[in-house]
Amino acid sequence: MKQHLSRFLFALVLLSQTILSSPSVSLAKGQRSKRVDLIVSGGTVVTMDKDRRVIEDGAVAVAGGRIVAVGKRSEIESQYAARDVVDARGRAVIPGLVNGHTHVPMTLFRGIADDLDLNEWLTKYIFPAEAKNVTEDFVRVGTQLGLAEMIRGGTTTYCDMYYFEDAVADETERAGVRGLLGETVIDFPVPDNKTWADAMRYTDSFVRKWKGNALVTPAIAPHAPYTVNEQHLREVKAFSDRTQAPIVTHVSETRKEVEDITRDHGARPVEYLARIGFLGPRDVFAHTVQINDAEIALLKQNGVGAVHNPQSNMKLASGVAPVPAMLRAGVAVGLGTDGAASNNDLDMWEEMDTAAKLAKVATFDPKVIPAEEAFAMATITGARALHMDADIGSLEAGKRADIVIVDLDSLHQTPRYNIYSHLVYATKAADVRTVVIEGRVVMRDRRLLTLDEEQIKQKARAYRERVSRSLSALRPISDSSIAECGFRIAD
Amino acid sequence: MKQHLSRFLFALVLLSQTILSSPSVSLAKGQRSKRVDLIVSGGTVVTMDKDRRVIEDGAVAVAGGRIVAVGKRSEIESQYAARDVVDARGRAVIPGLVNGHTHVPMTLFRGIADDLDLNEWLTKYIFPAEAKNVTEDFVRVGTQLGLAEMIRGGTTTYCDMYYFEDAVADETERAGVRGLLGETVIDFPVPDNKTWADAMRYTDSFVRKWKGNALVTPAIAPHAPYTVNEQHLREVKAFSDRTQAPIVTHVSETRKEVEDITRDHGARPVEYLARIGFLGPRDVFAHTVQINDAEIALLKQNGVGAVHNPQSNMKLASGVAPVPAMLRAGVAVGLGTDGAASNNDLDMWEEMDTAAKLAKVATFDPKVIPAEEAFAMATITGARALHMDADIGSLEAGKRADIVIVDLDSLHQTPRYNIYSHLVYATKAADVRTVVIEGRVVMRDRRLLTLDEEQIKQKARAYRERVSRSLSALRPISDSSIAECGFRIAD
Repeated sequence: MKQHLSRFLFALVLLSQTILSSPSVSLAKGQRSKRVDLIVSGGTVVTMDKDRRVIEDGAVAVAGGRIVAVGKRSEIESQYAARDVVDARGRAVIPGLVNGHTHVPMTLFRGIADDLDLNEWLTKYIFPAEAKNVTEDFVRVGTQLGLAEMIRGGTTTYCDMYYFEDAVADETERAGVRGLLGETVIDFPVPDNKTWADAMRYTDSFVRKWKGNALVTPAIAPHAPYTVNEQHLREVKAFSDRTQAPIVTHVSETRKEVEDITRDHGARPVEYLARIGFLGPRDVFAHTVQINDAEIALLKQNGVGAVHNPQSNMKLASGVAPVPAMLRAGVAVGLGTDGAASNNDLDMWEEMDTAAKLAKVATFDPKVIPAEEAFAMATITGARALHMDADIGSLEAGKRADIVIVDLDSLHQTPRYNIYSHLVYATKAADVRTVVIEGRVVMRDRRLLTLDEEQIKQKARAYRERVSRSLSALRPISDSSIAECGFRIAD
Repeated sequence: MKQHLSRFLFALVLLSQTILSSPSVSLAKGQRSKRVDLIVSGGTVVTMDKDRRVIEDGAVAVAGGRIVAVGKRSEIESQYAARDVVDARGRAVIPGLVNGHTHVPMTLFRGIADDLDLNEWLTKYIFPAEAKNVTEDFVRVGTQLGLAEMIRGGTTTYCDMYYFEDAVADETERAGVRGLLGETVIDFPVPDNKTWADAMRYTDSFVRKWKGNALVTPAIAPHAPYTVNEQHLREVKAFSDRTQAPIVTHVSETRKEVEDITRDHGARPVEYLARIGFLGPRDVFAHTVQINDAEIALLKQNGVGAVHNPQSNMKLASGVAPVPAMLRAGVAVGLGTDGAASNNDLDMWEEMDTAAKLAKVATFDPKVIPAEEAFAMATITGARALHMDADIGSLEAGKRADIVIVDLDSLHQTPRYNIYSHLVYATKAADVRTVVIEGRVVMRDRRLLTLDEEQIKQKARAYRERVSRSLSALRPISDSSIAECGFRIAD
């Protein structure tokens, strides 16, 4: 009798678990539903597929980290039963955002030196600050901070270039975020490697270690054509050809760069890179602000992806990238935040909004980049720019399950007329509610599940003290022109 | 005995209320403290006074709707005892933000037509949509929606121009927000007044009704020099001279306006307005995008305030206002969001950030508008642009108590090095925590106290249905070029 009761209770538990774990999944009569891991159920599904389908009251089924079906909620729920259901009713369901260019550990330098031009900022402030502060632990803490901020804002994939990139990769995988992560190589001693040979050895072992990882794609990141010489750039290209590792780099960010390269090499940056055989379909070029039509044609011809960083380019007064011309020529142009030291955040919603608006005012053409195209730059076109569009950038069966659920009814979003306009011009990072990467829920109802927010903040504040102390000639703002910066690093 | 107990309990209640209502106010021994209504206690007080004092662990004492003292927390708390204390420790305490130009009821048109140039947008979409939808009730609901969004984002004063401005004023006073509110007058029939004479009569009674109100300053708002003829502009000026009501208007927003005015009047817009005696120290000119140095000199000479709307100017591809040149010439330049139909939000944090960045990229000078100056444009300089700096724009004894408490430790704000950079480049509207206007707490710990957020959203959604239905030739996005807009209004 006791045994019978126990069996009965066990059966009851099993039954209740099944019911509880799939609260909104109803099955068609007599049909056996397929088991999946997760269903995102209800809401406006903005697929960004080739037909740009927008499915009202849609759903997305996920299994094994991949999307298995996208469709009407009624269809999906009649065919699939899930262990876990995310209720997205009344919300937008969008592809995870792709931050095409950043230096994630630089979150710890957020705001150390503002309102300066790129050259002064880089040589007098950022490079010295990095030399004095950047260690593997610094990189880990800064990466955690940046990852937490990016998840909160709905970014699921980011392209990074920094030092100790193996630690960046480790933290990224641990947090469950997708990264195209490039180890920076450059012609002067940097925190992780003191010689070119050391840097190339580090990169080789970094690429071998992470190749084939589901979340991390390892890459090599020569800093820029003005900080890496021709011989070294050729080595980078040969390395990429041998390992198939992507190359991420800064190209043509400022007028000064164009002048310097032209003086030293007799050609503009993209032309120079083409001449030395550097261009190819694994290249990702950040910025491409100061490029002409011939250079745009070279990018297209060679399958190079470009990443536009509107807020960074504005803040550092670099110029306005010819994004409409690049898009017209068929170049894949993604969007990036750049590092938090030059932006000063990792907010892709602001980049979308700014990309659309900056292109309009720069061309006096308000139709030149409509909201939908700006949204594409942050999703599918951004994925193409990183050469990752076979895997991410849209909600389609077969792609990796990087899915973001966004509130649509905050005050600043009320009322709603057009979904793309709503997402690009009215939605903020704070409206992101739930984030799924590789089928795993990493933020649920605004609670981070893979990172400890309070602990990260504490560690970041401790680094703030160290960074401040390390800047030996620390002077308060009133000492220098207020226009320049809060604190100064000794030259 | 019973009576004794009751008295004792009553005394206990009084005592506990006193203790509870001033938890962090300690009095110097033997010193009698002055009674005030409110103390904002602790935090980094960013005064924006003439010395630009930033007081760490500061406090602000408030009585009768005005600031009575600003200083170190220890000093303030030794001199004052308050009925209510707002704990601002670890936060920033800043002057309420000044949104220098908007059309608040247009929140209900947020996103009805995007990615269009100003002329097409205005004549084919906005004016017809207004003709079909704008009633006094529409204006009330839209105003409530916009006020709620502005309070949430830390805006305490706004300058408006719309129709049924008496209803806007009524809602504004009720919500406890400060407004410089202009009734729009224009040379064609509009929702509230069908003739010029009616509009002037409405405005006269509107100005008489609200003059002297603590929160609402009534104004007259001729739409623009291209929609109001010379004779009518002269009447507006005479009205303002007689009533002392401010004049708010759009001036030199686009190149087309400059061409049209030059063709019709043989002078550029500001020159034309100077010639007809329209310029004066009660004028507030929104936009001033397409103005030259001679026109800037005229603004300065005549004490005209200017309001820069960077995001609207970008989105409508109007151009980049010469803000650095205006500031150098001594013109007070504030910041505005413009209406939500052309932005698409009322977020002053994004305007500050964009103003600083847009000026940099437009001039190739990253130092041209540093963070502190952008923050001033949203506070004290913005108050000067509205001719209200005697009352608002900074935290100083004697000014009206418009005070905003802002979180400083969100992920996207971590770590912190420089307060102005932090506020302008990293802080978001969602970081605003508590808002005080005229000494009254209108939002506390992100809870709106004077407006019912859910009810407003419901009413706004109902208007969304009406607006959509009213647009008779409503066509889905796929009918027309996706580049153009979501919905079309019949011509």
